[in-house]
Amino acid sequence: MKDNNCIFCKIAAGEIPSKTVYEDEMFRVILDLGAASEGHALILPKEHYANLMELDEKTAAAVLPLAGKISKAMMKGLNCDGLNLVQNNGEEAGQTVMHFHLHMIPRYKGGAEVIEWKPGNPKAEEMEATAEKIKAAL
Amino acid sequence: MKDNNCIFCKIAAGEIPSKTVYEDEMFRVILDLGAASEGHALILPKEHYANLMELDEKTAAAVLPLAGKISKAMMKGLNCDGLNLVQNNGEEAGQTVMHFHLHMIPRYKGGAEVIEWKPGNPKAEEMEATAEKIKAAL
Repeated sequence: MKDNNCIFCKIAAGEIPSKTVYEDEMFRVILDLGAASEGHALILPKEHYANLMELDEKTAAAVLPLAGKISKAMMKGLNCDGLNLVQNNGEEAGQTVMHFHLHMIPRYKGGAEVIEWKPGNPKAEEMEATAEKIKAAL
Repeated sequence: MKDNNCIFCKIAAGEIPSKTVYEDEMFRVILDLGAASEGHALILPKEHYANLMELDEKTAAAVLPLAGKISKAMMKGLNCDGLNLVQNNGEEAGQTVMHFHLHMIPRYKGGAEVIEWKPGNPKAEEMEATAEKIKAAL
């Protein structure tokens, strides 16, 4: 289902122009207007899913094979030295458009570090408790 | 194929202990010892693939459906407010263990921002040239 109030639905449908690098019946892959690096792209499903939790099984299964295909073209065509995949779910996670999208961010030697986090140091008993909470909800 | 020199192969095979939250025939999901937040987990394929570009089609297709399942358990079991997926390819992209792994990082209201990047502002003609480079390599 397309959501008429969703800008990524309109871009995926071709109603709003974008710099498209790939398109098939399920997805459109576009360049990000606020690119973190040359070639920063977004994989957009054409159907509207707010996030990973809402994604249907068929679409979910198709995302990483497509990302693999695009990543090989990026490595070859852009001569980049690495690549980050980032996918944000929820405002607290930095998601700004509530339509599932996978960021593909090529990385170049000498480029600024753009994806990083501060590692924590949880205690073994905290990790045990956390693992139990996740397992109980599976 | 398992790589005998790879620590993630050994963890995925159960030869090195880990805090496992999920396991099936293709994957093991463990808590990250350097967790960026409570519940920070890694999805590890049991077969050895260095990165996204090397992943076989069947494994690639199974990663996001599994991440979807785990994400729902995290939202429910940890009561987190959002979630980042991050997957790094190559040293330049911050990959430290050369065995494909998908980070799942729960986010909590008031927690420190851990995933962010500085948006660029590429010119339309630069984006056109970049798109052509990727398309030519597809």
